Amino acid sequence: MNIAAQKLTPTVTTGALPASRKIHIAGEQHPEIRVPMREISLHPTSGEPPVIVYDASGAYTDPNHIVAIESGLPRLRESWITARGDTEDYDGRHIRPEDNGFATGERLTPEFPVRNRPRRAKDGKAVTQLAYARAGIITPEMEFIAIRENLGRKAAKDALVRDGDSFGAHIPDFVTPEFVRQEVASGRAIIPANINHPEAEPMIIGRNFLVKINANIGNSAVTSSMAEEVEKMVWAIRWGADTVMDLSTGRNIHNIREWIVRNSPVPIGTVPLYQALEKVNGIAEDLTWEVFRDTLIEQAEQGVDYFTIHAGVRLHYIPLTVNRVTGIVSRGGSIMAKWCLHHHRESFLYEHFEEICDICRAYDVSFSLGDGLRPGSIADANDAAQFAELETLGELTQIAWARDCQVMIEGPGHVPMHKIKENMDKQLKTCGEAPFYTLGPLTTDIAPGYDHITSGIGAAMIGWFGTAMLCYVTPKEHLGLPDRNDVKVGVITYKIAAHAADLAKGHPAAKIRDDALSRARFEFRWEDQFNLSLDPETARSYHDETLPKEAHKVAHFCSMCGPKFCSMRISHDIRAEAQKEGLEAMAAKFREGGDLYMPLGTTPAGE
Amino acid sequence: MNIAAQKLTPTVTTGALPASRKIHIAGEQHPEIRVPMREISLHPTSGEPPVIVYDASGAYTDPNHIVAIESGLPRLRESWITARGDTEDYDGRHIRPEDNGFATGERLTPEFPVRNRPRRAKDGKAVTQLAYARAGIITPEMEFIAIRENLGRKAAKDALVRDGDSFGAHIPDFVTPEFVRQEVASGRAIIPANINHPEAEPMIIGRNFLVKINANIGNSAVTSSMAEEVEKMVWAIRWGADTVMDLSTGRNIHNIREWIVRNSPVPIGTVPLYQALEKVNGIAEDLTWEVFRDTLIEQAEQGVDYFTIHAGVRLHYIPLTVNRVTGIVSRGGSIMAKWCLHHHRESFLYEHFEEICDICRAYDVSFSLGDGLRPGSIADANDAAQFAELETLGELTQIAWARDCQVMIEGPGHVPMHKIKENMDKQLKTCGEAPFYTLGPLTTDIAPGYDHITSGIGAAMIGWFGTAMLCYVTPKEHLGLPDRNDVKVGVITYKIAAHAADLAKGHPAAKIRDDALSRARFEFRWEDQFNLSLDPETARSYHDETLPKEAHKVAHFCSMCGPKFCSMRISHDIRAEAQKEGLEAMAAKFREGGDLYMPLGTTPAGE
Repeated sequence: MNIAAQKLTPTVTTGALPASRKIHIAGEQHPEIRVPMREISLHPTSGEPPVIVYDASGAYTDPNHIVAIESGLPRLRESWITARGDTEDYDGRHIRPEDNGFATGERLTPEFPVRNRPRRAKDGKAVTQLAYARAGIITPEMEFIAIRENLGRKAAKDALVRDGDSFGAHIPDFVTPEFVRQEVASGRAIIPANINHPEAEPMIIGRNFLVKINANIGNSAVTSSMAEEVEKMVWAIRWGADTVMDLSTGRNIHNIREWIVRNSPVPIGTVPLYQALEKVNGIAEDLTWEVFRDTLIEQAEQGVDYFTIHAGVRLHYIPLTVNRVTGIVSRGGSIMAKWCLHHHRESFLYEHFEEICDICRAYDVSFSLGDGLRPGSIADANDAAQFAELETLGELTQIAWARDCQVMIEGPGHVPMHKIKENMDKQLKTCGEAPFYTLGPLTTDIAPGYDHITSGIGAAMIGWFGTAMLCYVTPKEHLGLPDRNDVKVGVITYKIAAHAADLAKGHPAAKIRDDALSRARFEFRWEDQFNLSLDPETARSYHDETLPKEAHKVAHFCSMCGPKFCSMRISHDIRAEAQKEGLEAMAAKFREGGDLYMPLGTTPAGE
Repeated sequence: MNIAAQKLTPTVTTGALPASRKIHIAGEQHPEIRVPMREISLHPTSGEPPVIVYDASGAYTDPNHIVAIESGLPRLRESWITARGDTEDYDGRHIRPEDNGFATGERLTPEFPVRNRPRRAKDGKAVTQLAYARAGIITPEMEFIAIRENLGRKAAKDALVRDGDSFGAHIPDFVTPEFVRQEVASGRAIIPANINHPEAEPMIIGRNFLVKINANIGNSAVTSSMAEEVEKMVWAIRWGADTVMDLSTGRNIHNIREWIVRNSPVPIGTVPLYQALEKVNGIAEDLTWEVFRDTLIEQAEQGVDYFTIHAGVRLHYIPLTVNRVTGIVSRGGSIMAKWCLHHHRESFLYEHFEEICDICRAYDVSFSLGDGLRPGSIADANDAAQFAELETLGELTQIAWARDCQVMIEGPGHVPMHKIKENMDKQLKTCGEAPFYTLGPLTTDIAPGYDHITSGIGAAMIGWFGTAMLCYVTPKEHLGLPDRNDVKVGVITYKIAAHAADLAKGHPAAKIRDDALSRARFEFRWEDQFNLSLDPETARSYHDETLPKEAHKVAHFCSMCGPKFCSMRISHDIRAEAQKEGLEAMAAKFREGGDLYMPLGTTPAGE
C-alpha cells in the first residue's frame, strides 16, 4: 500500500500568500492551544500596523511546516479529546469492497497509509461540544474559537465602530470563551468537530460570529480522482473556505475521503446517502436503514464532522412537489422521495432519526438537516413543499438537541430577492435559531455560467439577514463539475458575500480590512492594495495588464485616468491646500452643523 | 479622408445570437415605427412558443442588415424629428485642432467620412421629449418605447403573475404610449434622445420600467484606439448594454466620438468636462465657462444624448471631504473641487447652470447630474459631503425641469448593504423622483479584481429599491482599463443585477424567461437552456468541458450527478408515478389546506 500510496501522493499548493505571515496566538485558560492567524504586513511608508485576518488555510500556508500528505496533518486535538476521558479507542469497522464501489486493482484508490484506531464515546456518554457547553465546560475548542473570531480586534480598538443592522443578531464587541460556550449551549451555534478528526482547527458556525462559507468538492461517476480532490480541498481553504463538503459519488468514496479528512484542517461534511446508494448499486428502492446505518458508522469513524441528513422529506410532502416547475432538485431529497413512494411508507431517515442521533452523539458529528425539497427555480421558491419540510426540520432539531447533538439547517436554493428574508425569518422561528446554512440563493435562473454571481447576490443578502454559513456556487453550477479555477472563483465570490454580510451586520472588526485597503488605494500604495485583497494574484495581474512596469507600482496614478485626470491625486492636492488654508477648521465647523447647505442665489458667487 | 477612413474602418462583431431571430413590431398610432425584439426559438419537443426578449443590440445582430461602419447606421428618427417642424439644420461649429488634442498626421484619428449638418431648436423652442410630454404629445419615441417595454407580455398573459415588492414603484400590467408620456411628463422617466443622434433606437430610463444598464468605454491617455472603442460599443450592446458612456480622455476625443455616435443604436453619454480639460492641457485651474460651453455645443451637435454635469460640487462642500478616507474619487468632482479651491469661488457649472439648460433644451440632451462627491470607500459612505451634494442636485433638478430639460441623478459608489436603501430613499425625496443612475454600489472594498461582483450585489439591491439605471463595473475596476472580455463580464453581471431587480420589483414579464429556462432545465432540453441564458456561448462551453459529446446535449443527466444520481430524472419518475397513483389529486387536496403537517409519531409509519 505504502509504495502505491507514495506513487499517488497528491502534490498540493503550499506557501504563504503575498506579504503574509502565519502567526499563532496562545490561549489563556488553555495555554497549549495555538490559534493561527494571517498577518498581512504593509509598506513602511504607511506607518500602519499589519492587518490580521482570519486564516482557514491550515499548515499549507506555513513555510515552517513540512507537508507530508501521506502521513496527514498533526493531530492537534487528540490530547484535548483523550484528556476528557469520556472516549475510548476500538478496532472499528472493517473496510468492505462496497465501501469503494467494488473497485479493484488499478481502479482502486490506495488506502491511506496510516491507520488510526477510531474513538467513540464510552457507554452512551455524550461527547459533543453541545453537551460540554450545557455542562458549563469551556473546552479548548471554545477558547480556540474565541481567539480566532476576535481577529485583530484588541490591537485595533479605535477601528471598532459599531455600525450596521444585525436583524436581531447579537454580535459582542469582544468574543470571550464563555460567550462561545453560551452560544453553543443555546444551539445558536455549532462547532463541527468529530472526535475522529483531531487534525481540524476548531471553528464555529453561528449568526453571532463571522459568516462562514463552505466549498463542495468530490469526484463523480463521470470524472475526477483522489489526487485532484485532495488538492481541491487544499486549494479551497487557501482562498478561504471554512468547511469543505466531500460530495463524492461513484467508486473509491471511502479511500478518497480518508485522504481528504487526514489532510484537512477544516471540518469535512458529507451526504452519507450518496455512499449508501452506491452500496446498493444506485437503486434507490434498495436502500435500507441497515445499509445507511453502516455508512454513518463508517464515516463517523473516519472523522466526518457533519452529515447532511434529508430526514425532512416525508411521504405526504411528495405530492406537493408534483406541480413544481423543477420538481425535486436535491439529490438526497429525490432519492428519499423515490424510496418513500416506491415502498409507500415513511422515510427510514425520519423513522430512525433517534438512532441517527445516538451515532452522532457518540462521535460528535453535527447534523446538517438537508432541505431535500428546496426550490430549484424562481417559480418554486417559498412554496408549500419547501416550508412543510422546514416545519419537520424544526421538529427534528428539538429531537437532536434533546440528545445533545449539534444541529444546523440547510436552506435554498433559487429565491428572488423579495422572497429571501421570509426564508431567514421562518427558519429562525421554526428551528429555534439553530444556524442556517444556505446554498446561494440564486436570485434569477437566466444566467447559467454565472451562477456564482446570481447566487452571490442572494448569499450576501441572506448572510446579512442572519445565515451563519453560505455554501458556495461555482460558475459551473447546472453545467458541469468545477475545476480548480472554478473552485477559486466560487470561494472568492462567497468570501465577498460573507464579508459584505459581516459589514452590514456591523461586525466590529470587519471594516478594518476595508479601511486599510482603501487607505492604501488613496495613498497609491499599490503593493499594499494587492496584498490586502482577497485575491492578490488576480489584482496584481489585472493591474499589470495595463501598466506592467515596476515603476507603476509606485506611480501616483493608474491606467484608468492617467496622470492628468487622477481624482485621488487631485484630492491630495486639495488636502494639501486644505492644511494651508486651514480648511480643516472649516470642515470641523461644517460637521458641527454649520450652515452646510445654501440654496441657489444666496451665495455671492450665485448672485 | 475616405481612404484613410476605409483603411481604419473598424471590424465589429455581427450576427444573431444562437436560436435568435430579430423581429420588428409596428406601431399603431405611428405605423411607420418598427420596434426590434429578439425572439429565442425553443426545441419543437417543448411545445412552447418562442421567448421574446428586449433587444438593445441594434442592427448588428440582424443578418438582413449590411453593416457599413464608415457610413453609419440608418437615421431612423430623422423623419420624426423633422416632421415636428421645431428644429432647423445649420452649419454648426467648425472642428478645431484642440478638439482632438492637437493630434496630427499619423496620430490623428481620421474624421468620420460622412458629415451631416447638425440640427437645433428654432428660436428658443424646447425640443425635448419632456416638453412634448407636458404638451400632451405622444411622440413616435414614446410609442416605440411602450411596445419595447412590454416584451412578449400580450403573448404570455397567463405568465403574468404579479408578485414582488416594488417599494412604491408603480409598474403597470401593460405599458401604453400614454403611460410613457405621463412618466416622462412627471419627470419620473427620461428618454435620452439628442435630435442629432437620429440613429438611436428610443429607450426609457425610469423606475416604473425595466431596469437598464450602462457600459462605459473610452480611450485614455495611456491606451486604446478608435477601432477598439467602436467594437467595444457594439460588443457591449450585443450583450445587453442599454446605453454607453464614452469616457475618452487624451487625444482624438472628437473624432473617435463621431465614429461611435454614428454607429450607435443606443444613447451615448459623456462627461464634457474631460474634453474641456484636454482643451486646456489638463490644467484644471485653466478651465473657463467659455471652454466648457464650447465643448457642450461641440458634443450636442455630434449627438451626445446625455451629459454628466458635476454642478453639485460647490465650494463650501469641499471642506467636508478633507477628512475622508478616500477624499474625492469622482474625476469630474475632483477637477471642479480643484478649480473652486484655486479660484476661491463657486463652480462655473453651478453659476451657469441655466445656460447649460438652454443648450440641453435646444438639442434634447438629457442631464445626468454627476455625484462628484460620491464615496470612494465603505468608510465614506452616506457622509455629509455626499448628502450635501445630493441636496444641490435636487435643487438643480427643479431648475432643469423648469426649462423642460430631462434629468437623471447619479449615485454612489461604495456603500455597505445596510446603507444602500438610505441612498435610494433620500434621492427619491430630494430629487422629486427623478430617475436614479448608480455606479454599483460596491458593498466591500477588499476584492479588487472582483468588483463586478462586489458591486453587482449592491446594484441588484438598489435596482430593486428603485434605481432606474445601473452603471456597470468591470473586473478591472481600480486596476486597469477593461478589455473586450472585461466589458462582456461587466455587462452580463449587470444584466443579472437588473433582471434580479425586475423580478423582485414584480415586473409582470420578467419571470417569463426564468420559467422558460427552468422548464428547459427540468426537461433536459440542454440547447434551450443554453439559448435562453444571458450568455449562451459560455453556458455551452462550460457544459462541454465535462460532457463534450453531442449525444450529451440530449442526455437525461449531467456531469454533476451522473445518470444514477440525477435528481431531476428521479423527479420525472416521481411525476410519472404521481400520474399513475393519482397523487395529482392528493397534491390538490394538500394545496386546499389539507393536514399538511403531521408532527412526529402521528403517522402509522412513525409509530
